[in-house]
Amino acid sequence: MTESLKPGSIIGIFGGGQLGRMLALAAARLGFLTHIYDPDEAPPAGQVAYKTTQASFSDISAIKKFAQSVDVVTFEFENIPASAIDAAETICPVHPGGAALAASQDRVLEKDFLNGLGLKTAPYLAVDTEADLEAALQQIGTPAILKTRRFGYDGKGQIRITGAENLATLMASLEGAPAILEGFVDFSAEISVIGARAIDGQVVCFDPGENVHKAGILHTTTVPADLSFQQRTDAVILAGHVLNALNYVGVLAVELFVTPAGLVVNEFAPRVHNSGHWTQNGCATDQFEQHIRAIAGWPLGDGQRLADVVMTNLIGDEISQFSNHAADPENCLHHYGKAAIRAGRKMGHINKVSAKSSA
Amino acid sequence: MTESLKPGSIIGIFGGGQLGRMLALAAARLGFLTHIYDPDEAPPAGQVAYKTTQASFSDISAIKKFAQSVDVVTFEFENIPASAIDAAETICPVHPGGAALAASQDRVLEKDFLNGLGLKTAPYLAVDTEADLEAALQQIGTPAILKTRRFGYDGKGQIRITGAENLATLMASLEGAPAILEGFVDFSAEISVIGARAIDGQVVCFDPGENVHKAGILHTTTVPADLSFQQRTDAVILAGHVLNALNYVGVLAVELFVTPAGLVVNEFAPRVHNSGHWTQNGCATDQFEQHIRAIAGWPLGDGQRLADVVMTNLIGDEISQFSNHAADPENCLHHYGKAAIRAGRKMGHINKVSAKSSA
Repeated sequence: MTESLKPGSIIGIFGGGQLGRMLALAAARLGFLTHIYDPDEAPPAGQVAYKTTQASFSDISAIKKFAQSVDVVTFEFENIPASAIDAAETICPVHPGGAALAASQDRVLEKDFLNGLGLKTAPYLAVDTEADLEAALQQIGTPAILKTRRFGYDGKGQIRITGAENLATLMASLEGAPAILEGFVDFSAEISVIGARAIDGQVVCFDPGENVHKAGILHTTTVPADLSFQQRTDAVILAGHVLNALNYVGVLAVELFVTPAGLVVNEFAPRVHNSGHWTQNGCATDQFEQHIRAIAGWPLGDGQRLADVVMTNLIGDEISQFSNHAADPENCLHHYGKAAIRAGRKMGHINKVSAKSSA
Repeated sequence: MTESLKPGSIIGIFGGGQLGRMLALAAARLGFLTHIYDPDEAPPAGQVAYKTTQASFSDISAIKKFAQSVDVVTFEFENIPASAIDAAETICPVHPGGAALAASQDRVLEKDFLNGLGLKTAPYLAVDTEADLEAALQQIGTPAILKTRRFGYDGKGQIRITGAENLATLMASLEGAPAILEGFVDFSAEISVIGARAIDGQVVCFDPGENVHKAGILHTTTVPADLSFQQRTDAVILAGHVLNALNYVGVLAVELFVTPAGLVVNEFAPRVHNSGHWTQNGCATDQFEQHIRAIAGWPLGDGQRLADVVMTNLIGDEISQFSNHAADPENCLHHYGKAAIRAGRKMGHINKVSAKSSA
């Protein structure tokens, strides 16, 4: 077992966006210093971090220098080249480790892993050629979704197929990227479970939240989700199963579809997650602090929900109304400190908190 | 009315200790950048701030340069020379303003102000000479407390007089500092009310907390305090009275003695306060964010208590047990990032949170 890190230790974070920023704020509460590694000149997390390194994820010598300056490395997003993680791992612990990252970076490997655990996913087939696509459509049927295997987020790199499309055009739009065809899942709701696993194997999961998307981007997460007791229990056990199977250290998010035939796993993310932001104002220990505790070798905090919360993302110029939301006493405000407003860019969020319901 | 500051604005903070640090963390949640001004090389707040200036409070040219680089100035402690505040005020808004600071810096002026509002304080008399002290002891009686008028904190600069002391020796120990003799107040408890006032005059007070000291330093604050409904209401109205009388902007702490004859004001501090740390885990908006909202011209947040909290300070080497406290699920941990442990130094605190009682 790794020794636990003392306050004053330095936590290195790959990626300095809003997730890295909120990790840095949580780390500070526990007395840790943070060092952000990001290709951008002024990443949002840099405003609250002890130190920032501006360098590319392909700059192995910069990665090694960074790893030498910190006591543990973690990351805020999963699309980090394996070579960067490998280089850091030669120098200091990286949590969560490369195995979880590898499984989450490729949609085919991810679904292979989940089905290997006996969990349900959408039907899927790897697609490299037009012939693959034709065969996959034959087997899976329509509607179906064609996705790149790697580097997709917020609905990017996804095409919905109804059956009328020209297959050659579809393949051309992928520009040679390996792809996956996924069958359509007829779900009544999408939920996610944020879970954490400590170095000693302790697992703590937060209550499932119910997600609503708008234009492919998460719009709201509501806790408690509208679930039966059985569904709630199933979701939490399922997340624990994934955490243990990966011998995971840190926070992980599992997105699930609620269907008449039970819970179907959409995907998991080996990191803190937008659908877990509600924990900042609904729990004694939020997902960010929980992640820092886990990777530092500390005991995990309480995952108990203390309030009902609706988390709403502020996208693009919705952020211009930020201070107006302060007038509602139920609103807890979180701004990401991004200077440039762009359409579709996550700029902040609001946790609207009310008394805990019985669910 | 001052216009409200937009996210991305820079908040300047005189003093980079734990209060400045927690102000900086709260400011970041709202999208503000912070610039810390502190004579020390590596103040705790600097670890989470956008920028730090190391300079003395008597360096007027550094103060002016600092004020030019920020959009508003505030402070984390009241013992800042008036000349520093005055210099900053010529360049940008300073909240709370110099008037509140001046009244709080001198124990005689402070008590004159409070009595002028019709509030009760301990009996007191200014003491400049041995003759003054003799006359004051005659009038006030013993036990009494001799304090320096200025620059005292955590019980420093205070001598308890029982009547057997040599007056010349007592006066010599003051080393010429102007003093005050205060009569002893026979109190059953010490409570404090943390209140905030916005630029537009909106006032929000948190629930009174009950303070227990150890060796002259705050040990625990417990909410709810053990008070009658009437006492609770009196305490909050009294704090509102002080805030309005000072035309105050920001968070202010009022320490009160609970006596059979009603509430007696001990002192007030024109800043966030150790006895308000419980709000971090007991309210939707804590005292730090409330202060930032106020000085930024934003609406104040909700002061409602959502949970019961016992705040315990970690003093000196008590901090070495910090991560062990993480194992108790009711504990919310706050570390100040101070490298050097010294006896009597405030190193962190723990908020132990439980379900809200009816009080």
